[in-house]
Amino acid sequence: MANVQNIKGMRDHLPKDMLLRQHIVAVITQVCQRHGFDPLQTPIVEYAETLEGKLGDDESLIYRFEDHGGRRLALRYDQTVPLARVVAQYANQITLPWRRYAIGPSYRGERPARGRYREFYQADADIVGSNSPLADAEIISLLNEVLTELGFPGFVTLLNHRQIIGGIARVSGLDEQSAGSVYRAIDKFDKIGADGVRNDLLKSGVSEAAADRILALVQIDGSSDAVLEALSEQLADDERASAALENLRAVIVGLAAMGVPEERYRITARLARGLSYYTGVVFEANTPHWPEGSLLGGGRYDELIGQFAGRPVPTVGLAFGIDRLHDVMLELNLGPVSTTAAQVFVTIFNAETTAASLDLARELRAAGLNTLIGLDTKAGLGKQFKEADRKGVPFAAVLGPDELAQGVVVLKDLRSGEQRSLPRNEVVAALMSYNGAHNA
Amino acid sequence: MANVQNIKGMRDHLPKDMLLRQHIVAVITQVCQRHGFDPLQTPIVEYAETLEGKLGDDESLIYRFEDHGGRRLALRYDQTVPLARVVAQYANQITLPWRRYAIGPSYRGERPARGRYREFYQADADIVGSNSPLADAEIISLLNEVLTELGFPGFVTLLNHRQIIGGIARVSGLDEQSAGSVYRAIDKFDKIGADGVRNDLLKSGVSEAAADRILALVQIDGSSDAVLEALSEQLADDERASAALENLRAVIVGLAAMGVPEERYRITARLARGLSYYTGVVFEANTPHWPEGSLLGGGRYDELIGQFAGRPVPTVGLAFGIDRLHDVMLELNLGPVSTTAAQVFVTIFNAETTAASLDLARELRAAGLNTLIGLDTKAGLGKQFKEADRKGVPFAAVLGPDELAQGVVVLKDLRSGEQRSLPRNEVVAALMSYNGAHNA
Repeated sequence: MANVQNIKGMRDHLPKDMLLRQHIVAVITQVCQRHGFDPLQTPIVEYAETLEGKLGDDESLIYRFEDHGGRRLALRYDQTVPLARVVAQYANQITLPWRRYAIGPSYRGERPARGRYREFYQADADIVGSNSPLADAEIISLLNEVLTELGFPGFVTLLNHRQIIGGIARVSGLDEQSAGSVYRAIDKFDKIGADGVRNDLLKSGVSEAAADRILALVQIDGSSDAVLEALSEQLADDERASAALENLRAVIVGLAAMGVPEERYRITARLARGLSYYTGVVFEANTPHWPEGSLLGGGRYDELIGQFAGRPVPTVGLAFGIDRLHDVMLELNLGPVSTTAAQVFVTIFNAETTAASLDLARELRAAGLNTLIGLDTKAGLGKQFKEADRKGVPFAAVLGPDELAQGVVVLKDLRSGEQRSLPRNEVVAALMSYNGAHNA
Repeated sequence: MANVQNIKGMRDHLPKDMLLRQHIVAVITQVCQRHGFDPLQTPIVEYAETLEGKLGDDESLIYRFEDHGGRRLALRYDQTVPLARVVAQYANQITLPWRRYAIGPSYRGERPARGRYREFYQADADIVGSNSPLADAEIISLLNEVLTELGFPGFVTLLNHRQIIGGIARVSGLDEQSAGSVYRAIDKFDKIGADGVRNDLLKSGVSEAAADRILALVQIDGSSDAVLEALSEQLADDERASAALENLRAVIVGLAAMGVPEERYRITARLARGLSYYTGVVFEANTPHWPEGSLLGGGRYDELIGQFAGRPVPTVGLAFGIDRLHDVMLELNLGPVSTTAAQVFVTIFNAETTAASLDLARELRAAGLNTLIGLDTKAGLGKQFKEADRKGVPFAAVLGPDELAQGVVVLKDLRSGEQRSLPRNEVVAALMSYNGAHNA
């Protein structure tokens, strides 16, 4: 017998999974479209060279291989580097600023672990070619709408800016070289706490005084206005940090005008975000109901696209991890959970009534109902009820000789076992109302 | 500067392409769901061994590679072999008969050519675990609905059965070995014509008498009933062919009961279809408006899944080639062609009116309109009109201090240049009605 296993870390998604994943993708797609984002699709495979030199420490995770012609290829690591390639390659077909979304798989050449897959799906949304804080605000507003529509409870988007962390390092007396270790230490704050970060800083050669100053700054908490105020005071001597704080303030103003509720975002200098190509605003969304990590994140990267295009193309964007959202929604009991999208199973009584059953099925489908039909004209009703029930279909319809003679259809609720006889022209409405109630 | 090319034969799809592709995918998804098909997704990468030994002559086209651990892997060739793997691997989670659809990319390790890509997208729909002719009919009915909803003019589905071709070879006096060459010769009928097929048959050692008999049989044309009648008479001595004709007759009866118009299908013994794993009914859809090849095809394959599952699992299915449908729809001017899904561009008059413009945008989005906003508060209206127009957005909305004072919005039709002032509460309706008229 042939090999019957999927590759570890690359998952099969049966209908129960897929129906929830499709729901997530549909919500993201709708929100993106409403915001005027247009779809882009790039190949799964890229020249390895295209991906190399952009990912910093993560470069070793690129899923590389050679094709038969000896070309060095790779399965794409994300959809951001391919976006940068596309903006350069099709510059004359794209009007900037360009809002695009892209939904598809990306790959990592790493050992799979809980929540980390070799193949995973992401939905990216980016605004290419604008340095306006309104662009940053729009991306965060989009994040806010998606998580709200998906029903995530109590989520908060944390905001920071790369130049605030840089400023904190500088005003603490560190040179540009040491700023990297500040960055890496802060990135672990949630995992190792203030003491852990302090130890890390000291180990990397930061003085006690500087470490204390850094820790005091990254632990400033409060309302967005209060945090901005406090940081502005503390970082007043650093020009780049001051500009970054001004920029963040404009983002906040944009968020308010876009109707994002104040309790949905918070500024904190503790947020680092891993990807080396971020240059400005960074953000990530968390919910206290799922403390294991962030739901998703993103930020501004003004230099990556220029690496391909040969001119500066400021860009801000985010990536929804479909697998992460799916896993968390399952854990928090959010979203639809069913094993089939079929709403009714039209049984076949016998060979003579087959055409009538097929006709009923056609009528139900025309009304928009997802309708299965029996395929075995000799199966008998009991077997068909059982088949429908095992599949998770809520209703079975029966149209035997008696029903045909009386102009009725018997509708059987497969969960309760209850069945009722309805005039044929009322069947659609009965199924629709169940479905409406069921989804409410 | 980094490499800025996609890999040859693996295409980027910019929004103009993607909007049409999304339309195709949406129609297929809706029709599948209405028929009670549920979604499945499998990884892009499979063990090479999983794909090998199932594809006959096409096996050399498998896109193979080795990963870093030296494992022999492959990008999937189609979505059918992964389906077979899934049915075996998750047997206890699947209730047969199982209708599943799957939409995603597959790969060929071949030289790209016009209409042939290394990466291409397919939408598969299969009914697993039923040998009922109603299953074959349902798949063909689904094909019929999809092509009808996509607006393909004058298409016809050609139907045949593998055992009819086998019977033709047998009654012409050929042994099982020679049947293969009959099959390959007939497959080229449309390209090389009757004389070409005759030559091919003679070259492969078939006698003149046998070749003439074969050609007479495969050229029987007429109504489905007439062709079935004539072939039944001619193949009466061959048991398997007679059973196949009986089976085809039952499929035709199912198609009629499912409401597929008679002019939409035709039985012809000329249809071969390439894939070696077909065992029963085979079909393909063509339109005279695009004579370069078939639109799509499929058939019954009762043995492939058993190769994994270790027990017979009769299955019938089809694959819509998204790339093929897309290419043909463009050539025949079917379907939507636009460069953006955005419906309106809300301009920003100046920094003071920004919040009001963002508020209007929010209102339009809440009404379901795909709404872009200006990002540059100093751009000026002219520049924003130009941006919107270059993107292909049909309307721009203006909300300056005058409009705000009067409670109106100016709506500019960017194609005609015409602009009118509307009470704010009429803007949604005006844009909606344009959009309705535009899509009609």
